[in-house]
Amino acid sequence: MAAYRPTIGIIGAGAIGGYYGARLAQHGYDVHFLVRSDYDAIRANGLTVKSLDGDFAIPADRVNVYREPGEMPRVDLAIITTKSTANHALPELLKPIMKPDTALLTLQNGIGGEDDLAAEFGPDHILGGMAFVCINRIGPGVIHHIDHGIIRLGPFRETARQTAKDVVAMFKASKIRCEELASLNHGRWLKLVWNIPFNGLGTVMDLTTDKLLANPAGRQAVADLMTEVVAAANADGVNLPPETVQQQIDRTPSMGPYKSSMQIDRQMGRPLEIEYIIERPLQIARRHGLKAPNWEYLLKLLKILQ
Amino acid sequence: MAAYRPTIGIIGAGAIGGYYGARLAQHGYDVHFLVRSDYDAIRANGLTVKSLDGDFAIPADRVNVYREPGEMPRVDLAIITTKSTANHALPELLKPIMKPDTALLTLQNGIGGEDDLAAEFGPDHILGGMAFVCINRIGPGVIHHIDHGIIRLGPFRETARQTAKDVVAMFKASKIRCEELASLNHGRWLKLVWNIPFNGLGTVMDLTTDKLLANPAGRQAVADLMTEVVAAANADGVNLPPETVQQQIDRTPSMGPYKSSMQIDRQMGRPLEIEYIIERPLQIARRHGLKAPNWEYLLKLLKILQ
Repeated sequence: MAAYRPTIGIIGAGAIGGYYGARLAQHGYDVHFLVRSDYDAIRANGLTVKSLDGDFAIPADRVNVYREPGEMPRVDLAIITTKSTANHALPELLKPIMKPDTALLTLQNGIGGEDDLAAEFGPDHILGGMAFVCINRIGPGVIHHIDHGIIRLGPFRETARQTAKDVVAMFKASKIRCEELASLNHGRWLKLVWNIPFNGLGTVMDLTTDKLLANPAGRQAVADLMTEVVAAANADGVNLPPETVQQQIDRTPSMGPYKSSMQIDRQMGRPLEIEYIIERPLQIARRHGLKAPNWEYLLKLLKILQ
Repeated sequence: MAAYRPTIGIIGAGAIGGYYGARLAQHGYDVHFLVRSDYDAIRANGLTVKSLDGDFAIPADRVNVYREPGEMPRVDLAIITTKSTANHALPELLKPIMKPDTALLTLQNGIGGEDDLAAEFGPDHILGGMAFVCINRIGPGVIHHIDHGIIRLGPFRETARQTAKDVVAMFKASKIRCEELASLNHGRWLKLVWNIPFNGLGTVMDLTTDKLLANPAGRQAVADLMTEVVAAANADGVNLPPETVQQQIDRTPSMGPYKSSMQIDRQMGRPLEIEYIIERPLQIARRHGLKAPNWEYLLKLLKILQ
């Protein structure tokens, strides 16, 4: 079978989109970057990645960068790496580059992004994934890949199962660790078990992960939230055993004094991804009739920061 | 009737104790300061007050300053201005300076301080007060009195009513605004209606008062907490009408971007007065069978910072 060689659009080349897009371009894929703030810098100097796996760059004369989607070619695969806080604007960004069978892969955090895309473009060609990566944009067009980097992805509906397999193979061929998820919903909920307390409480209290786990009160508050999220996942048809709570707590200290993306967004005065990481999954819990008082209160406090 | 001219001990001459003690000394009262960290500076240079009402100083040769209570004379009135986080150590500080009828005035925040003193020394000679003052220690033995300064005080039991009147008169004779409270418990609960949300949420979220009131979600979170505190006050025999909530919110914007003392303590890495400002009053609410879910959750999060 011929290898999957899609024309790729990276929608929102911040740290995540810039890094993965640059990796794909480095390995010969046809990548087109839609960029806002760093357009001039990338146009002039290309994309530079400083990585623990070795630095590399996509030079200016070989980078396909665009300010407007109308200037881009239509693509076979659009990888969405914008912040979910701008999702209201996504359909208008995507329409100019879509073909009838363009696959959409959203790498955003939280739950609900695929549902939004399905409502707009139909459910059949949608993929979802999560990037487990420590990465920073350290300057215009300059990305620092600090650690990790695995992507776990799966199809939103089984109609896109083969595309998911193709995309996994494409990432692997580009030195990106990648795993196919049997259940995207399982992967999303499992990540939320960690994200809801550490992004949520970490942002409300402006505390790094180590501080949240530094005393019994903090460990209890984290565990109570995780327990509510595990219950919601199970109600939503995802089987997460009760041990998940302790497992997710136990894997955290090795991360050191880690700032969640949402805590960083708070510190930088940027919009917070409250809707997709905290509120949409809570709405699912409510629809299943669950009580989640810790989670409800967390959302109430987060909205003070909106 | 002869004027009240007590020998006065100031227990803990930080900003509050230093300021009020200096005012009393300035007006000829016999004041003895128990000090820890600033002892050498005050011994050498006296106490300096930079005040919006005019700067003044108590020179080194006229300031009575002590490092240990055993070195002090026994006093007629001890004014307690230590942080409530050190209350476990108070009896041992007070015993060496007590006479059988020494009056104790605690100017700490929150509820429960007088109960502790009564359990140790009996209830008959105890006064409680609240200082409404903007004040900073800007250097060793140097205090900046920025604004306000009224003290509202009353007796813990009616046995000390006359002493309360005498102390009010003493403060007034020293250019300190002072009001006698008909009910100390009423005064304490009314202050808590403001302190619990603004100290509590302000500390948990590291937000100044203006930020807590900046959007409807914040105003709702503050009002929900205040409503629970008003209910607890009423259950505890203090009549606070429901309008109290809106009144306490409405008086806040004029304070500008105000940092509560507890928020400052968090930022400085100091112990937090959670027990007396948040937990003791909540225990009273619980004893009266009240549900206070916002307040319970606030306490739960504050304990992460302990």
